[in-house]
Amino acid sequence: MHVQPDSMTGAESLLATLLACGGDACFANPGTSELHLVTALESEPRIRSVLCLFEGVATGAADGYGRMKGKPAASLLHLGSGFANGWANLHNARKAKTPVVNLVGQHSTSHLPLGGSQVSDLEGVSGSISDWLKASNAASEVGADAARAIRAAVSKGGQVATLILPGDASWEAGGIPGRPLAPEPAKQAAGDRIEEAARVLTSGRRAAVLTTGPSLAGEGREACTQIAAATGAAFFCPSLYPRMERGAGRMAFRRVPAWGQSALEILGEFDDLVLVGTESPILAFGHPEYESVLVPDTVRTFRLAGPKDDVAGTMAALADRVGASGVGGASLCERTAPSLAEGPLTAEAIGRAICRFLPEGAIVSDESGTGGAAAYPLAAGAAPHDSLYLTGGAIGQALPVALGAAIACPDRKVLCLQADGGGMYTLQALWSMARERCDVTTVIFSNRVYGILVRSLGQYGIGTNRVPDLFDLSNPDLDWARLAEGMGVEGHVCNTSEDFNRVFEDCIGRKGPQLIEAVV
Amino acid sequence: MHVQPDSMTGAESLLATLLACGGDACFANPGTSELHLVTALESEPRIRSVLCLFEGVATGAADGYGRMKGKPAASLLHLGSGFANGWANLHNARKAKTPVVNLVGQHSTSHLPLGGSQVSDLEGVSGSISDWLKASNAASEVGADAARAIRAAVSKGGQVATLILPGDASWEAGGIPGRPLAPEPAKQAAGDRIEEAARVLTSGRRAAVLTTGPSLAGEGREACTQIAAATGAAFFCPSLYPRMERGAGRMAFRRVPAWGQSALEILGEFDDLVLVGTESPILAFGHPEYESVLVPDTVRTFRLAGPKDDVAGTMAALADRVGASGVGGASLCERTAPSLAEGPLTAEAIGRAICRFLPEGAIVSDESGTGGAAAYPLAAGAAPHDSLYLTGGAIGQALPVALGAAIACPDRKVLCLQADGGGMYTLQALWSMARERCDVTTVIFSNRVYGILVRSLGQYGIGTNRVPDLFDLSNPDLDWARLAEGMGVEGHVCNTSEDFNRVFEDCIGRKGPQLIEAVV
Repeated sequence: MHVQPDSMTGAESLLATLLACGGDACFANPGTSELHLVTALESEPRIRSVLCLFEGVATGAADGYGRMKGKPAASLLHLGSGFANGWANLHNARKAKTPVVNLVGQHSTSHLPLGGSQVSDLEGVSGSISDWLKASNAASEVGADAARAIRAAVSKGGQVATLILPGDASWEAGGIPGRPLAPEPAKQAAGDRIEEAARVLTSGRRAAVLTTGPSLAGEGREACTQIAAATGAAFFCPSLYPRMERGAGRMAFRRVPAWGQSALEILGEFDDLVLVGTESPILAFGHPEYESVLVPDTVRTFRLAGPKDDVAGTMAALADRVGASGVGGASLCERTAPSLAEGPLTAEAIGRAICRFLPEGAIVSDESGTGGAAAYPLAAGAAPHDSLYLTGGAIGQALPVALGAAIACPDRKVLCLQADGGGMYTLQALWSMARERCDVTTVIFSNRVYGILVRSLGQYGIGTNRVPDLFDLSNPDLDWARLAEGMGVEGHVCNTSEDFNRVFEDCIGRKGPQLIEAVV
Repeated sequence: MHVQPDSMTGAESLLATLLACGGDACFANPGTSELHLVTALESEPRIRSVLCLFEGVATGAADGYGRMKGKPAASLLHLGSGFANGWANLHNARKAKTPVVNLVGQHSTSHLPLGGSQVSDLEGVSGSISDWLKASNAASEVGADAARAIRAAVSKGGQVATLILPGDASWEAGGIPGRPLAPEPAKQAAGDRIEEAARVLTSGRRAAVLTTGPSLAGEGREACTQIAAATGAAFFCPSLYPRMERGAGRMAFRRVPAWGQSALEILGEFDDLVLVGTESPILAFGHPEYESVLVPDTVRTFRLAGPKDDVAGTMAALADRVGASGVGGASLCERTAPSLAEGPLTAEAIGRAICRFLPEGAIVSDESGTGGAAAYPLAAGAAPHDSLYLTGGAIGQALPVALGAAIACPDRKVLCLQADGGGMYTLQALWSMARERCDVTTVIFSNRVYGILVRSLGQYGIGTNRVPDLFDLSNPDLDWARLAEGMGVEGHVCNTSEDFNRVFEDCIGRKGPQLIEAVV
């Protein structure tokens, strides 16, 4: 971009602000109200603009990008409807505490009050999912507002920030680039609280730590490993987590199940539970006969830090306090070499192939659901990798998150594990993967049913003789290879373990994108 | 359903209320919070439950159903994310004034305040698009609330009503079926206003009527035709209309263009403009040099009835007042027999084939966009049919609306004209068409570009040497035949007029579903 500041439009000042703040990716589905921003982006090679054919792909990709980079990507959306289409994956991003900045075009300020066919309640729909929301009402405000949006996105542990851009604020001159703003400082747990947590963990009582977010990767994970080594505490994470470094040489965090009541038994083995960066575990859905809070009365809970606090810093301080200097005492995952399965294809068979062939440094975007649950434990023995999990339960996350992760980390193989039901929500992500030549291998767990709902029927004591029609994804069967090929992605269908092992080894060993329908 | 009222669950009372109010269709994408409603629906053959693999399909189908039947279908949605996925097509339904009832599962009332991964602001997101919204907080309230929701949907010209159903209100006993409620009475224009309108139309000045909704079909359309015959008034409708009876033997309503400024010239030919069931026409998007209100200062506007009033009744009263007893004086469309095109495939060539082969009584769901605009005028000479148009500008409407129309009118051929960009938003509708064996022929206008945005660049004076990447749908080209086949729908690709004429004549002449990608 080569524009003199004094002749900048609002759109150009926005772009200049993004650049000044280190922005380098924009996942976009633009419309008429974003024309000026699009043309500004078009001439700016430092920002990678990725066209998505549905807004849920754009916001999910921004989530995947943010989880890997720790800084926000922008989504570019159009009006209330475009924002609404991206809402579900913003819900997932928000639960993941991923920094995301939504740039949403709006009608010009003079036009908006007139109503008309394309006017809707953009403030209402975006306010219902955004942690931070503002409309810039003049070109001169856009830059400063964009800097505030970016600050909001990276504050309080990661937030969803939405900046509404009326057409006239974009096209008028008078734009002023915003200056980068430091994040609001996150609170580390106070010294006496660290002391108290350390006392709990070293008391000799049976202690567990439940943590998530920054604790599951990088320095946070190392601190957890040190604490485990020094204290013997068990480390848990929620069943839905944003990003976890898994695989050989790393400590395994046990997931607390949010379905049924087994969490009560698991946590009932402990006297103390220390919460760092998360609240007490909650059942996914209320049930007439189940406890919603998944901590038994016999367990004493100590909340050291919440999701908005400085989780990694708190964990590091705790590690210092308990005096751990190495990880030797912690139980680390060993590299396993399971034999490949034969015969009918199952999730467990897929898990074996993943464990064997997943390359070191791969990123796994996992929404494999009930159909893929049996594959999950096997990846603990795979080469070291990152696992990005469905965080908010809004299905249709894994494909867009895989797209965003591949844009964030172009040199790492991305493996997308996607249940068929959720995959149909945002299958348009495949086209963007083809367009951007993303190195993504997608495995569709094709069990042709909303499996979690069938399982839930039993939990709620609802007797049925057969799978209800409304949970049944057969009739007709989806042909995922054709769907992939229709969007420019190489497609395969595998019905046996032998088939899958061969095709998966081939795909994972070369550049993608490819898709494998695993009929399980 | 065979349940004693005193042992009914809330979910069963909801179903009983729907039945009592004449409900017979439900477009569903359920989740855990809707288990009890799903199992109640499963045993109720009087309600046709259609599984949709994305909520935008469900709400769009409910819109198509409501436009054809004049009564609401239910959508069945799951939590805030599920509702948000349906938001864009509810925006279209709302602009169409289609009656729709959304049934949205929510966490149980005791569980909700605990938060957790799947909790979001359902009231906020649904409140931002619903004309009527309520959460039923006990099984005993569900039936009465459902009756109120249905009344709201059919009141004030047609509304979007949303009923939130917490899990416990669904599963608990104590449900009481709601009694059907009469719609709130719609206001017909007062006698003196009718007099005044009649004076305007018979004054000898050049008069035009701008109307929509009920005026474009059935008795409303007949009244308009009579008024045109008696007064010579010109009849206009908005460019985006919900349902219009078009074709041979019917008066053509001229559409007021909402892009550019040609509307000012067109309406500038008149002295008076009478508004019935609509407000003054507004430009789709504000522009720095264009007027937003598309009525020249020289035109005197008289607003006889608004969108929430009794439009058909007002129009009939006006017809009575101007003394029209027949339609002989009105200019009616003649059946034309255009020759079929040869050579490269164009929208105009497609229009010729449609005009020639469209069967009488067909329903056309039209979101053909810029790529299909040239086909539109030709359908005026086709056999009589219904045209359902994109109403709110939220793309991804035509495929779901075609699905809903086909469920509403199983004996009528449905022709879906879908631009490629919008088609990718809700392509999952094809699967439901295959599953329900809907008689829908879909034509994808595949110009591989967001054409309206390219056109807008010129209007906003933005110079570019080439189509911006963010508007470009090629690289890779979508293969719509494979996408269709992947979802169980017969697929074709046509590159020439000869190809298209042959394939279209074949498809339209037999039962669907089929899809034809028309590369234009």
